[in-house]
Amino acid sequence: MLDVCLLGCGGMLPLPKRFLTSLLVRHAGKSILIDCGESTQVALHLCGWSVKQIDHILITHFHGDHVVGLPGLFMTMGNNGRTEPVHIWGNPGLQRILDGLLVVCPQLPFSIICHDITECGYQFQAGALQVQAVPVEHRIPCVSYSLSLPRAGKFDAVRAKAQNIPLQYWAALQRGETVTDGEQRYYPEQVLGDPRRGLKITYATDCRPSRELVALAQNSDLFVAEGLYGDIQKQPGAAEKGHMVYAEAAKMAADAQVGQLWLTHYSPAMIDPEEHLPAAQELFPNTKCGSNLMTCTLKFQDV
Amino acid sequence: MLDVCLLGCGGMLPLPKRFLTSLLVRHAGKSILIDCGESTQVALHLCGWSVKQIDHILITHFHGDHVVGLPGLFMTMGNNGRTEPVHIWGNPGLQRILDGLLVVCPQLPFSIICHDITECGYQFQAGALQVQAVPVEHRIPCVSYSLSLPRAGKFDAVRAKAQNIPLQYWAALQRGETVTDGEQRYYPEQVLGDPRRGLKITYATDCRPSRELVALAQNSDLFVAEGLYGDIQKQPGAAEKGHMVYAEAAKMAADAQVGQLWLTHYSPAMIDPEEHLPAAQELFPNTKCGSNLMTCTLKFQDV
Repeated sequence: MLDVCLLGCGGMLPLPKRFLTSLLVRHAGKSILIDCGESTQVALHLCGWSVKQIDHILITHFHGDHVVGLPGLFMTMGNNGRTEPVHIWGNPGLQRILDGLLVVCPQLPFSIICHDITECGYQFQAGALQVQAVPVEHRIPCVSYSLSLPRAGKFDAVRAKAQNIPLQYWAALQRGETVTDGEQRYYPEQVLGDPRRGLKITYATDCRPSRELVALAQNSDLFVAEGLYGDIQKQPGAAEKGHMVYAEAAKMAADAQVGQLWLTHYSPAMIDPEEHLPAAQELFPNTKCGSNLMTCTLKFQDV
Repeated sequence: MLDVCLLGCGGMLPLPKRFLTSLLVRHAGKSILIDCGESTQVALHLCGWSVKQIDHILITHFHGDHVVGLPGLFMTMGNNGRTEPVHIWGNPGLQRILDGLLVVCPQLPFSIICHDITECGYQFQAGALQVQAVPVEHRIPCVSYSLSLPRAGKFDAVRAKAQNIPLQYWAALQRGETVTDGEQRYYPEQVLGDPRRGLKITYATDCRPSRELVALAQNSDLFVAEGLYGDIQKQPGAAEKGHMVYAEAAKMAADAQVGQLWLTHYSPAMIDPEEHLPAAQELFPNTKCGSNLMTCTLKFQDV
């Protein structure tokens, strides 16, 4: 199970009724935050999921509307008593950006461990989630992320009984752990079926569509993607600035066969994001307009 | 005439219904901003006074809740087409703070001219306003500011006529300008009475009370001052952190014989700022609890 909260849906600058685009993904009491613009901590406050649980922060790129909220968030985490390190991931140069922004909070009570994403398809573990990053086309280096929660195969009680595996070890084996009992060892493979479909989220903003991005998003349960404008007439202007419009995001969602698409990162000039939603839904029916604090829970399919 | 807007009234971190403390003062179409925390640009948006008109920014100190909003504000000013320089004033070290924070917006379309406040009682001109800065006691170097709008003497038409000063020069002389007509020069002193009482605002946050601060605030029409807590029981804790409570601000307002006191910079832990207002009003009757976007217009007295 994954809880997802789109903290905001705006691009460029925070507006009174539109927080900047940022995604919070929670699993088993731990959270991953993607991007952190000015006021993201206000949206986090409203969301109500504890900032103390954010162990990993993923940054798409270094434009201000995606990183300026970091010092304020870190200070709030520190004031809330955090002492455990925070891992932060982004393009090479992230340390220099942090060194700049954190000039106002030189003495945080926890360490910030900075990781550079150095190659296309770079993979890493963020808690229980597997993260993959691919570079996308924007005005400055930018990456998109997919977050996957794998799911083990189904526990086969008939096989466990047939192999005389004591009942007290079943739960550990079900969790994928190997169990040792004196000389005897029991392995999950002895009792689990083939791995089952897990859960996957892909987050892509400030980018042009690309084959690599479609591959990253392939079969995602949720695709959170930029739609700077709904009006297709504005596509050339968006493309020139390294952004995409609703129709481009919807086309990718269809190509990647995702479960649902949430549009986000709206231009401040776009007053009503819903206006052009129907046209996007013609390309990919399960398209929704993202909004402040839009939340869902993704669950494993019951198989 | 001076328009004043208290953009927010919170301290430490922006809250969903409480912007961080920041003051906007407008005169003759030009504005001065004091402090700029995270989300200050959202409050500015709601206030509706153009960000393009902000020519001067005064910074009290370098804690994040007073400066983190600068990069976002500057980017928004740039996107709004500003090309004229912005002057920014603060303690020595301001340039280093700006160099850090502006790492996310290295190419602004206007220049930022940084001024260090190097001495107690430092005075400078910000548009038509005379600004004075004095150091105050906090955990890090901090200053408080007064902003004064002087008022020329009353124009004396009888004296102007008696001296045969041509009517076409009266308006210029009234504005305080010297006029040359061939060999003849006319001076404002020929037609203006003694300077009259102008307008004055003093802004003091993140500080302990002091004699210097009372002197700075002397006879202000409006004194905007920190009240981290209303509850006098919390005074020792506030003092330890270099802050003051309602009663201390009200006492200073009485000592400085100001027109009115607006309390601000509330602790996030203080849910209802009005709760302890009556006790402060016993010390200084014209005390008000500052709130988001609290606005007033100060006018010259009709003399």
